[in-house]
Amino acid sequence: MEGVDYLAGERKKAEFDVESMKIVWAGSRHVLEVSDRISKLVADDPAFRKDDRTMLSRKELFKNTIRKAVYAWKRIVELHLSEEEASRLRFYVDEPAFTDLHWGMFVPAIKGQGTDEQQQKWLPLAYKMQIIGCYAQTELGHGSNVQGLETTATFDPRTDEFVINSPTLTSSKWWPGGLGKVSTHAVVYARLITDGKDHGVHGFIVQLRSLEDHTPLPGITVGDIGMKFGNGAYNTMDNGLLRFDHVRIPRNQMLMRVSQVTREGKYKQSDVPRQLVYGTMVYVRQTIVVDASSALSKAVCIATRYSAVRRQFGSQNGGPETQVIDYKTQQSRLFPLLASAYAFRFVGEWLKWLYTDVTQRLQANDFSTLPEAHACTAGLKSLTTSATADGIEECRKLCGGHGYLCSSGLPELFAVYVPACTYEGDNTVLLLQVARFLMKTVSQLGTGKQPVGTVAYMGRIEHLMQCSSNVQKAEDWLKPNQVMEAFEARAARMSVSCARNLSKYANPEEGFAELSADLVEAAVAHCQLIVVSKFIDKLQQDIPGEGVKRQLEVLCGVYYLYLLHKHQGDFLATRYLNPKQAALANDQLRALYTQVRPNAIALVDAFNYTDHFLGSILGRYDGNVYPKLYEAAWKDPLNETVVPDGYHEYLRPLLKQQLPSARL
Amino acid sequence: MEGVDYLAGERKKAEFDVESMKIVWAGSRHVLEVSDRISKLVADDPAFRKDDRTMLSRKELFKNTIRKAVYAWKRIVELHLSEEEASRLRFYVDEPAFTDLHWGMFVPAIKGQGTDEQQQKWLPLAYKMQIIGCYAQTELGHGSNVQGLETTATFDPRTDEFVINSPTLTSSKWWPGGLGKVSTHAVVYARLITDGKDHGVHGFIVQLRSLEDHTPLPGITVGDIGMKFGNGAYNTMDNGLLRFDHVRIPRNQMLMRVSQVTREGKYKQSDVPRQLVYGTMVYVRQTIVVDASSALSKAVCIATRYSAVRRQFGSQNGGPETQVIDYKTQQSRLFPLLASAYAFRFVGEWLKWLYTDVTQRLQANDFSTLPEAHACTAGLKSLTTSATADGIEECRKLCGGHGYLCSSGLPELFAVYVPACTYEGDNTVLLLQVARFLMKTVSQLGTGKQPVGTVAYMGRIEHLMQCSSNVQKAEDWLKPNQVMEAFEARAARMSVSCARNLSKYANPEEGFAELSADLVEAAVAHCQLIVVSKFIDKLQQDIPGEGVKRQLEVLCGVYYLYLLHKHQGDFLATRYLNPKQAALANDQLRALYTQVRPNAIALVDAFNYTDHFLGSILGRYDGNVYPKLYEAAWKDPLNETVVPDGYHEYLRPLLKQQLPSARL
Ligand SMILES: Cc1cc2nc3c(=O)[nH]c(=O)nc-3n(C[C@H](O)[C@H](O)[C@H](O)COP(=O)(O)OP(=O)(O)OC[C@H]3O[C@@H](n4cnc5c(N)ncnc54)[C@H](O)[C@@H]3O)c2cc1C
Ligand SMILES: Cc1cc2nc3c(=O)[nH]c(=O)nc-3n(C[C@H](O)[C@H](O)[C@H](O)COP(=O)(O)OP(=O)(O)OC[C@H]3O[C@@H](n4cnc5c(N)ncnc54)[C@H](O)[C@@H]3O)c2cc1C
Ligand SMILES: [Ca+2]
Repeated sequence: MEGVDYLAGERKKAEFDVESMKIVWAGSRHVLEVSDRISKLVADDPAFRKDDRTMLSRKELFKNTIRKAVYAWKRIVELHLSEEEASRLRFYVDEPAFTDLHWGMFVPAIKGQGTDEQQQKWLPLAYKMQIIGCYAQTELGHGSNVQGLETTATFDPRTDEFVINSPTLTSSKWWPGGLGKVSTHAVVYARLITDGKDHGVHGFIVQLRSLEDHTPLPGITVGDIGMKFGNGAYNTMDNGLLRFDHVRIPRNQMLMRVSQVTREGKYKQSDVPRQLVYGTMVYVRQTIVVDASSALSKAVCIATRYSAVRRQFGSQNGGPETQVIDYKTQQSRLFPLLASAYAFRFVGEWLKWLYTDVTQRLQANDFSTLPEAHACTAGLKSLTTSATADGIEECRKLCGGHGYLCSSGLPELFAVYVPACTYEGDNTVLLLQVARFLMKTVSQLGTGKQPVGTVAYMGRIEHLMQCSSNVQKAEDWLKPNQVMEAFEARAARMSVSCARNLSKYANPEEGFAELSADLVEAAVAHCQLIVVSKFIDKLQQDIPGEGVKRQLEVLCGVYYLYLLHKHQGDFLATRYLNPKQAALANDQLRALYTQVRPNAIALVDAFNYTDHFLGSILGRYDGNVYPKLYEAAWKDPLNETVVPDGYHEYLRPLLKQQLPSARL
Repeated sequence: MEGVDYLAGERKKAEFDVESMKIVWAGSRHVLEVSDRISKLVADDPAFRKDDRTMLSRKELFKNTIRKAVYAWKRIVELHLSEEEASRLRFYVDEPAFTDLHWGMFVPAIKGQGTDEQQQKWLPLAYKMQIIGCYAQTELGHGSNVQGLETTATFDPRTDEFVINSPTLTSSKWWPGGLGKVSTHAVVYARLITDGKDHGVHGFIVQLRSLEDHTPLPGITVGDIGMKFGNGAYNTMDNGLLRFDHVRIPRNQMLMRVSQVTREGKYKQSDVPRQLVYGTMVYVRQTIVVDASSALSKAVCIATRYSAVRRQFGSQNGGPETQVIDYKTQQSRLFPLLASAYAFRFVGEWLKWLYTDVTQRLQANDFSTLPEAHACTAGLKSLTTSATADGIEECRKLCGGHGYLCSSGLPELFAVYVPACTYEGDNTVLLLQVARFLMKTVSQLGTGKQPVGTVAYMGRIEHLMQCSSNVQKAEDWLKPNQVMEAFEARAARMSVSCARNLSKYANPEEGFAELSADLVEAAVAHCQLIVVSKFIDKLQQDIPGEGVKRQLEVLCGVYYLYLLHKHQGDFLATRYLNPKQAALANDQLRALYTQVRPNAIALVDAFNYTDHFLGSILGRYDGNVYPKLYEAAWKDPLNETVVPDGYHEYLRPLLKQQLPSARL
């Protein structure tokens, strides 16, 4: 049966050109070409095999990851890959590794915070991987509140050195990826102390291990922090712990682009604006949003294909049962996630533009849009990662019992993904930052300061506070301006309502703390508006390919109507909608599900994922699920012997009643 | 620092008698005594150690589980434990094992479906564990739809035997726990065929393995289906696959209580009513609801204690930072889960009563309450398991980064718990059954047939359709009758609205399919009403202990106001509440959080869990989190050597540039 496409019938139903949609998903024809080529290169190379990952012990798993990461680098070198191609290759290898932190955090930290000389010294070593670095900020006792870090870097003017020290147990560095077993160097964040004065947290380049034999340098205690969630998953990463016992580093290993310590131990600021760091933050968060769309689309691809293969109930006259994808409950859980994957893709694309825009403005010393860009990226990071984590688990449940098997790929996808809700800013903490920005924006309305970018709609606050929906029939919900007004009015009213409640408190900080749960809801409403508006904007563009734009319109409708239905309480409570209009939205949503149905398989094919990358038997391109599940089962170590270890020692004496009997 | 109680200050704040609350949680003083004694017995016995579980390979893990399960049995025998004590012991050992299915499914299936002679033959063997059994229903291609099973049991009148056969790959049994490596016998569900006629699915006792050497009997292929979600977790269970190649069993191994095959091959029904099976179903679901409250309470206990230990931001003048439990966002995520754990406990207790009631009625041939009991237990199974799965993951996120470590206990708790949403009925499929029952109930209103039990409120449909809330100030939301009316009105109106929409379809089945997502929402509203009403009922009882009842009132308020706020869209859309009243509910909810705060630690202490059972460093009773996290990290196999495996082979050549360089 090898070679048969069990989903061919589904593919024929598609009402649009899949190849054109692939370009839309990839972002451009060029990116699609690179992705396609590199993903196949990885898939075809047995060295990148990953289906054994969930069966390996931690030590085997980790050694295997070192092997793959080094081999990947070798291939990058041998094939003369460009930076773009190299990063695609790491992406398709699909295994967290120390190299992620080296390229994603260590190198950018030096680029962003190092002086020109520092960059000239360290970057070439890092680029050639003659040193491997990590990013050591979080401590055992201190995460979200970076200003609370305890590690100290005390300047010793006698020797022109900093003394790095871990004064308490809770000051142990804890979590940095790549630190536990691999990194030779780290950017360490520590409180800078000169002349008895604490200047707050700064970054320092510290060598951790000998470049000769990899043993930790004197004064350094370093190790892995232990098993994390899931089989395989993030356990390929050596998140580490690190303690310093008065470790000395030369003064020029403090990252000095923004502030310096002089030979005499004087602390001073350079004229480089501090705001520069925000540029990096926008960049990092943009990649997190794009990663969310990748992770969610993988899960959706698996669940969609399997829902077309899986049949349950509804057999008529002994014929085949109904494909579970035909059940409206299945559609109402699955299709909004499919739509969300596309929505996050497009908002991620827009964030790339935002990053360019912010960077250009920074270069021109224009900091005016920074607070808005900062709030917007914080909110989008939070919204997309939370929705993706929940969405992957929902996709797993949509696969019934078989989704619980590692061979479905979904358990590992969930376990490896969820920390995105926590790292780079805990999602609740980030939403509180968004809320703070929204309250500031509201408080400045009428002062002549025009809100810009994603809060520009607040400039129309008077209209948004008093308008109400004109929707009269279900199809009215397909009109973009109706939708935009609804989401804007809801977000604006929730913010204004919070601001009003806040104003009742004598102490605004106390009020903010007391009302923070409501403020988080207002922030979510604002962030959802951003995603909806960027999806709608995308549809204003020219999108080539037969039927492609039409499909995206349907998905866009599913996305916003799903949100509207889920949060109808907000729309009703703010009196923008009446119950009848909310019900019409739900009717229209149901109608759209019917339009998605014939296109569902083609819409996930457009992600252009190889079976290797998906890593799921349920999500196989050819739909040949059952024989392959059966085959995979036999590979479990427990099946190496017919009679299990422990039979002779424990089970046989029990069965043979060489144990006394119970009084039950 | 061993012996210090870092949470002593928190414990002092409690405004109620914790010992009395322990009795309430346990259900009675007797149950508390037994639980306390048995849980300590398990905790103190090093043979039941479980903190190494996430580091073992599948084979080691499985052997270890066999050892523990047999040892547990030995202890049960040696200590002459009662059935109650034995089942508590298995509970506190806290590791899924083949014994769960033996006692929980195999024995009950024979009891419920076997004739007296069959029970006399098989039960003594099972009780002494001279045979070990499992429950083999699900197949590779068939789960939810039991009527679609493909395995056949064809009667051969020449030899007076059934021939059990797996005609296709998809007919392979797939999932039964205990099957893969351990069970000697199984209750196998197969299509009964006599004289060429298919009589549908029936149960058969089939021996699988030799009692001499444990090898599979001729014609039987059996093995493990492979790794499942998570480290440790459910991988201690040998969920198995099973194929039959014309395996012959004597006729008297068909379970014949309800229907028989005669020596001549005639199929006939006995006069034992078929409905008897529903009694078992109510029983099984009752245990699932109680298990939900156990699992959720574990997660909540961990997250609550850690939230009191964890400090982040808000340090004033260099003093300690704020405990994260003091943040309202943390409270608004955590306290509703605490309240849910209690709510599920009480509804589980009530289900015990329902089971007794149903059993008594069945014995008196009264089947009138069965459909209602069936719908109600289906709905409660779905509601409590979904909320618990989501709640455990929320608790994990509430612990920030450290919740992602296996040593927090939360990853394993999640992974081991989530299949409860799928087994014993997929939660969506169950809600559709509830919806079907609700639609039937609505359609019979006015026919004189009075709705009973948990749908009795439908009897007051006229009032519920036209009333509206009298709430005028926040405290009005503390009045039970206001709350009951609100939840009843919402549930009734959603059901009626679905029924009206259904009536627009010429074909009711088509309408049901089309509107099924709305129907599921109506079913959820109905189930939430049940939980709320049983919590409120509980408070009508006399509850001894200083301040205990008061605390439960607060938790009850948190539970229903949290639901009301989360689903305010339903209450507003059905026009039972106006936006102002919904806002007042939210205000009152916030006020209740403040009342929970000082009691939070004591409220989780009342679960009376040992540190062994919790299995979490973050949830330690003494709050001594950081030193113990640090200690645990060093136990990871990766820390056995300073320099990791793979350094010499892969990393060193890279660092030493024995690889050519890249063009990046
Ligand atoms: C897989 C993984 C990889 C990581 N990699 C790195 C790395 O390479 N380098 C590195 O330095 N770090 C790394 N980290 C650490 C990560 O950055 C932190 O875990 C993250 O910043 C969250 O901080 P925390 O763990 O202290 O959570 P906490 O802040 O302790 O969160 C606990 C709870 O408190 C709440 N809370 C905290 N503050 C507030 C507030 N002000 N108001 C309301 N609620 C609040 C949170 O919402 C949460 O519910 C990693 C973490 C993980 C899980
Ligand atoms: C850990 C674990 C232990 C188990 N132990 C046992 C055991 O001991 N013995 C045994 O026999 N089995 C066991 N099972 C199997 C279990 O009973 C089934 O997995 C369960 O009944 C769900 O069926 P399924 O897997 O076929 O899901 P499916 O029915 O295939 O579900 C897939 C999707 O289809 C949807 N769907 C299905 N039917 C409908 C419908 N009519 N309308 C709308 N949507 C629908 C579901 O909601 C779901 O989203 C176990 C399973 C697990 C995960
Ligand atoms: Ca009234």
